[in-house]
Amino acid sequence: MKAHRADGLSAFFEPASVAVFGSLNDSTFSMGNAFGAIKNMLGFGFKGKIYPINPSGGKALGLKAYTSVGEVSEPIDLAMLLIPPKVVPEVLNQCALKGIRSVIIGTENFAEAGEDGAVLQKQVVEIVRRSGIRALGPNTLGVLSPSIGLITTPYLLDFHSVLKGGIGYCSQSGLVSFGGHPLKDKGYPISKLCDFGNKCDVNEVDLLDYLSNDPETTVISMHLEDIRDGHAFMEAARKAVSKKPVLVFKPGRSKAGAKAAASHTGSLAGDDQIYESAFRQAGVIRVNTMREFWEVPQVFSSQPLPKGNRFAIVSATGGGGVICMDAAVEAGLAPITFTAPTIQKLAGLHPRLAHNPIDMGPLLSVIADPFPAIEDIVLTALSDVNVDCATLVLPGIKEMLESFRHLKPHLLDISKPITVFLYGTGLDGMEETLRQLEAMGFPTYLDPEIAVKSLGIAVTYSKIKSRAMQ
Amino acid sequence: MKAHRADGLSAFFEPASVAVFGSLNDSTFSMGNAFGAIKNMLGFGFKGKIYPINPSGGKALGLKAYTSVGEVSEPIDLAMLLIPPKVVPEVLNQCALKGIRSVIIGTENFAEAGEDGAVLQKQVVEIVRRSGIRALGPNTLGVLSPSIGLITTPYLLDFHSVLKGGIGYCSQSGLVSFGGHPLKDKGYPISKLCDFGNKCDVNEVDLLDYLSNDPETTVISMHLEDIRDGHAFMEAARKAVSKKPVLVFKPGRSKAGAKAAASHTGSLAGDDQIYESAFRQAGVIRVNTMREFWEVPQVFSSQPLPKGNRFAIVSATGGGGVICMDAAVEAGLAPITFTAPTIQKLAGLHPRLAHNPIDMGPLLSVIADPFPAIEDIVLTALSDVNVDCATLVLPGIKEMLESFRHLKPHLLDISKPITVFLYGTGLDGMEETLRQLEAMGFPTYLDPEIAVKSLGIAVTYSKIKSRAMQ
Repeated sequence: MKAHRADGLSAFFEPASVAVFGSLNDSTFSMGNAFGAIKNMLGFGFKGKIYPINPSGGKALGLKAYTSVGEVSEPIDLAMLLIPPKVVPEVLNQCALKGIRSVIIGTENFAEAGEDGAVLQKQVVEIVRRSGIRALGPNTLGVLSPSIGLITTPYLLDFHSVLKGGIGYCSQSGLVSFGGHPLKDKGYPISKLCDFGNKCDVNEVDLLDYLSNDPETTVISMHLEDIRDGHAFMEAARKAVSKKPVLVFKPGRSKAGAKAAASHTGSLAGDDQIYESAFRQAGVIRVNTMREFWEVPQVFSSQPLPKGNRFAIVSATGGGGVICMDAAVEAGLAPITFTAPTIQKLAGLHPRLAHNPIDMGPLLSVIADPFPAIEDIVLTALSDVNVDCATLVLPGIKEMLESFRHLKPHLLDISKPITVFLYGTGLDGMEETLRQLEAMGFPTYLDPEIAVKSLGIAVTYSKIKSRAMQ
Repeated sequence: MKAHRADGLSAFFEPASVAVFGSLNDSTFSMGNAFGAIKNMLGFGFKGKIYPINPSGGKALGLKAYTSVGEVSEPIDLAMLLIPPKVVPEVLNQCALKGIRSVIIGTENFAEAGEDGAVLQKQVVEIVRRSGIRALGPNTLGVLSPSIGLITTPYLLDFHSVLKGGIGYCSQSGLVSFGGHPLKDKGYPISKLCDFGNKCDVNEVDLLDYLSNDPETTVISMHLEDIRDGHAFMEAARKAVSKKPVLVFKPGRSKAGAKAAASHTGSLAGDDQIYESAFRQAGVIRVNTMREFWEVPQVFSSQPLPKGNRFAIVSATGGGGVICMDAAVEAGLAPITFTAPTIQKLAGLHPRLAHNPIDMGPLLSVIADPFPAIEDIVLTALSDVNVDCATLVLPGIKEMLESFRHLKPHLLDISKPITVFLYGTGLDGMEETLRQLEAMGFPTYLDPEIAVKSLGIAVTYSKIKSRAMQ
């Protein structure tokens, strides 16, 4: 069988057909088996063909189950293995024989589980190399590709509410992907999501290549515990960064953290200073917390890049303006003074408006319908020639959505990035308003500091990109 | 009328009777009037007497409304004013005449609103000084005192789910108190909450005094935009810190932030370096974000103080252990090596358990009932003589609650503080599990970095306290 490694990763994220190997017993699906993965895929609206593969045959979820992959006469783009470790090598060989080029090895208990597992993983790598199969995993929940309804995690989750968008997430831990974060309830606009697992073959370098060329993906956010081939990573990162921002959340900065990473995925995290300077050279931007890993990329999903760091705040509350202004300075943003015409217009609406941050509180407390005023003030501030970008501090209530519908075409014309910090007294309403604003293309946050920092990182990336273009 | 300022603030937080001045029109309650405040109080289970006061008299929410406070024959401990600014001086005089010693001036448009308001506020201050009334505000949503069901905010909110506990919160902004945070949905165990407003009389120094002597309060968390009397603050803070931790979230660190604070509440935020060194001298611990203001104090509500910084992690996921270990080093915690007997016991359960962080993932994936194993491992780790404190990384599912019920008496015996970081795939379930764990006395977080940092701050406070005791 000829190797065809040059094909890249498209079959992992855009397959027309998927074979799912493993138990089709619905009584144990919550423990993660083929039944769960198939049920998730059907629920998520996957339009491609799904082939359940199980030695017992029969039927599962209305689909014919095949006793082996060889029994399927049509071509298969992707296989998801949820089978015991010991049979993985044999099934990989069957996949190779069938001409399947892309295989996700969901199964645990390989190199991460000690010596026996490491020996088995070596066998897997040999088969993969010989056959030209590209393998993701082992020890992975696989991929999520919202635009085609593809999801491979075997743990039953309600994923139909995941937003389609521009963020390509990759992670070296289930915790920072499917398994540990309420993706279905959050407002992340996702293009692709990938859990690396043990990285026996497909790794961060492949994903950088693939996602940087993926037209759906406007930003790449990676959680890494280690980087196996620093040289290849640097080269791939440089190329990616010239096209779109690359954010990296890499714990293991401390020695203790690095040691913990080593015992988690057997990775050699190495000296953090080397990583830090490599990231800087390649133009990769580091984020520092799990929340930042998920939320900072939101600003890049749909907003234009800022032309500079001149920053304004439009706030429905005075206290919010103060907190955001402080965060802005720490994020490298430069608070501006509005031009005379803007000041004149704002002062005409209310004497206390004509400052940056604009505190709309006093005005809003004396008018009957606050929404037209908010819209007017937001557009006035964003239109000022002194302003490159802005954070809006607004109540997280559904009535705000109508205002953003009015604002959207005007903000597209103005073409300056904004972020929105929502406050409020009811969490459900805030989360739902956030999700809907994200779906409309507005990066929205419940932490004022992250709303502002995300714009600061957008400014940083603008500079990196213009350097890369020179 | 004789001044009686020495009485302190107990009538604000523990009144037996409250007069509420303002509109009793239910059609406008969402805009914040007396009707809303009274409805909140009844809903929150306030057992004291409530006297609605409105010139029109009549009835409101089943209560007799009085046309003036003089009409009430019984004594009144606290008044909440939700009336137009211009009538505030007159009503204050009526309150003084009636012998009311504590008044919350909810009304806006005083010093924060420009010159006219500042003149009016001066008048208010004169009446307050002359009469000996203690006044909170103006421009405040007032107080929350869960143990007696007292709530004065006029904005209708469903507060019956607020937890009773040990955290005393004070804030200089509605955003960082009632108005901008979903208190009813969060798991903060609250003793008292206070929105300072314009601080015309009652301020951070009074609250430090009051809360440091309040037996319900085990930790004080303050949001401040300025401090009016640095000397008095330092003195009150030193006294408070010898009894319980004092956390301060003070934006305005940057010049731009300070300027924004000045235009928000007319406060002179001053040079941040002076604040920083004053806080250090007084043993006040600074937190840096709005989330930290709310969440870091959780660790002090019910947990014992750590005896040292020797730190362990018990994690149901390898990735979570790595992230927490990194955060621990940054928070000043020292990752420990377990003693030989602990290592032996853990290795007996599973060879991959005998490290810090303990990664329970591999064990949990091969046993039928994970909960007894989790309980056993948590107690084994916490009992190790090398361990002063620990963070547990666990799934945010309701099944965990039963385990914590089993663990609780043992953890009380062991008397070492823990924090819990919950991960999961469903936000509702995670938030609900978090609330229930908080109600049981376990500080619980959805951000791994804050779960760990809170323990780091507990260690810092332990050192401050033992210095203060010497």
